[in-house]
Amino acid sequence: MKNYIIDLNFYNIMSKDLTLNLKENNVPISIGENLVFSLDFLNFCKTLGNRFVIITDQNVEKLYGEKLNLFFQNQHMDSFIISIPAGDSFKTRETKALIEDQMLQKKINKSALIIALGGGMVLDMAAFVASTYYRGIPLVMVPTSLLAMVDASIGGKTAVNTKEGKNLIGSYYHPKKIFIDLQFLKTLPKEEYRNGFSEIIKYGIIYDKDLFSSLYEKTQGHDLEEIIYKCCLIKKTIVERDEKENNIRAILNFGHTLGHSLENLESYKISHGEAISLGMIFASFLSVKMKILKREDFFKIFSMFKKYHFPLVFSQNISAKDIFDKLLSDKKAKLNRNFVLIEKIGSIKEDIYLQEVDEKILKKALFWLCNRFSSKAELWK
Amino acid sequence: MKNYIIDLNFYNIMSKDLTLNLKENNVPISIGENLVFSLDFLNFCKTLGNRFVIITDQNVEKLYGEKLNLFFQNQHMDSFIISIPAGDSFKTRETKALIEDQMLQKKINKSALIIALGGGMVLDMAAFVASTYYRGIPLVMVPTSLLAMVDASIGGKTAVNTKEGKNLIGSYYHPKKIFIDLQFLKTLPKEEYRNGFSEIIKYGIIYDKDLFSSLYEKTQGHDLEEIIYKCCLIKKTIVERDEKENNIRAILNFGHTLGHSLENLESYKISHGEAISLGMIFASFLSVKMKILKREDFFKIFSMFKKYHFPLVFSQNISAKDIFDKLLSDKKAKLNRNFVLIEKIGSIKEDIYLQEVDEKILKKALFWLCNRFSSKAELWK
Repeated sequence: MKNYIIDLNFYNIMSKDLTLNLKENNVPISIGENLVFSLDFLNFCKTLGNRFVIITDQNVEKLYGEKLNLFFQNQHMDSFIISIPAGDSFKTRETKALIEDQMLQKKINKSALIIALGGGMVLDMAAFVASTYYRGIPLVMVPTSLLAMVDASIGGKTAVNTKEGKNLIGSYYHPKKIFIDLQFLKTLPKEEYRNGFSEIIKYGIIYDKDLFSSLYEKTQGHDLEEIIYKCCLIKKTIVERDEKENNIRAILNFGHTLGHSLENLESYKISHGEAISLGMIFASFLSVKMKILKREDFFKIFSMFKKYHFPLVFSQNISAKDIFDKLLSDKKAKLNRNFVLIEKIGSIKEDIYLQEVDEKILKKALFWLCNRFSSKAELWK
Repeated sequence: MKNYIIDLNFYNIMSKDLTLNLKENNVPISIGENLVFSLDFLNFCKTLGNRFVIITDQNVEKLYGEKLNLFFQNQHMDSFIISIPAGDSFKTRETKALIEDQMLQKKINKSALIIALGGGMVLDMAAFVASTYYRGIPLVMVPTSLLAMVDASIGGKTAVNTKEGKNLIGSYYHPKKIFIDLQFLKTLPKEEYRNGFSEIIKYGIIYDKDLFSSLYEKTQGHDLEEIIYKCCLIKKTIVERDEKENNIRAILNFGHTLGHSLENLESYKISHGEAISLGMIFASFLSVKMKILKREDFFKIFSMFKKYHFPLVFSQNISAKDIFDKLLSDKKAKLNRNFVLIEKIGSIKEDIYLQEVDEKILKKALFWLCNRFSSKAELWK
């Protein structure tokens, strides 16, 4: 038994640490290998609750969920798993209610801790549950996908989807800590890696030209720990700035307006990474048409996504008008910041990116988009 | 037209004003007559949103909802009503989703304002919707019942019920302003008045012996504006103290532990006022049994509820064991503060009210409760 404990501690070698410093919350972030399944992890969780609820999806459950549950139980903790079907199409109010019902039936109350173990969908869902269960119970986040490590885990946004669109119902709620453990990447499918890189490339485009260049020059053999650290640092910085600078956080939505519309129109059968890669190309195209971005930068962005083998294609059934109508559903916003525009790779000028996109330009751009990408993948052979 | 405007302004004469001062929020509270349907009200709402969603129930809709909607529309505002069935049994996640769907279909977004018009159920529901719609949109509260004026409107608690219990899913979310308009009391049914007085009496018991005495001496012809003002002041004070003193807010739950259990066991067919009047008598009884409260104070509290004609009866089908089991479902809380106990009328000593109630005493007290109140009302003829 004692050996086992020493063994566990031995796992936890080094980590890169950050803290998201907000007015109301300080959220520590640890990035490293073999952080979870350690006594440090267990002891931290114990300070937050006397019962553990592991929320995960059915894929991650098999890979790591059951193992984590067993690990806790071996350490004499009262823990159990709630597993939901994988995929964004299950990120709904109905799934949230099912999770809550399971917790209520097990008489889980304020003294419990939720451990969110999974990709962005699981983190969004588990955090939303945590934020409204008994009006808020503690939460620890353990992202298992590259995408979730660099995006969903940081910033406190929680949400579910509805028929009308993505993430329209949700809350702001921060975890007590985020454990970004690279061991989970070992089992990550290739497409999921690519999904992660869509957001990593985004950080390069909107905030860090050096990151962009290094990704552009070398598409393989990255130091993932270093890249994840950089992305977390960028997201942390933007989320912190957002408390002082009104809505600066919106720049994180670069590529997401069109991306969300496509995801919704495709009933979430297109992956987030594929959708926002198209969205980023589209926003860059708009930036050129609005005479903000140089054409050469647009082409560089375009070829970046080709380098990383993004399919850059969506269903032929979706017309320019379909997309326009879907975009319109967000048109009455106080600020028409539907499209985040860029002026050059690595930076966004705040007074520029918020300007309204002319309807004619938008329509023309949508026709271009559909002609170019709404077809079979042979275009990119 | 101009006359009409002057007329409207004329209505709005005087109000008593308070502000709930919290770290993150300052919530102004106006108490007076004819505050709503005024240009001041309209102009205030206009500062918060360009579309108004009036959330109300089907009873209040007929009395005031349609009138308010018409008032806004006459002033060229884009407003509409969402009306839900009245009664706590509809305070569910399903009703919340139906409201959200209506708003989504009307393409309501962050630039809209929700106006909650109704009793506690409507306020809790509308505030919960506001807190998670687009991760939070502005909210104005207009309580129409005496109970909601002195309780639900202040403090930022939002919630829905589930099969397992009351208010287990919810959030903390404050309105931009609370308009307590006494004109709505003119149409309030007698039983609803009594419901309001259950909470008013509670404030007397837990925080203000003078309020208790004045209510005890004179059961009719109250200066309601003054009483509401006092209750709001007490609730504001406790909610503000709660930010510094850990969980002092729990004293507001005096009578509510048993009350909630009864409401749940009765499937919300017993009114909140009736349930918590029994709950307060029970908590006072426990306080005597725990040797904290004098017997004479208990009898005074008991007779107070008789003076105000509370029925003090619940269904014969509910046994002491049923209630005990229901109470147990909250037993794993970090602090066993299920029962708020009092040491004398008008004050609660913090180190005392949090102490654990012995299981034997609790069981005995439940038998007493059932013998005394779980029967036909003839006991109180």
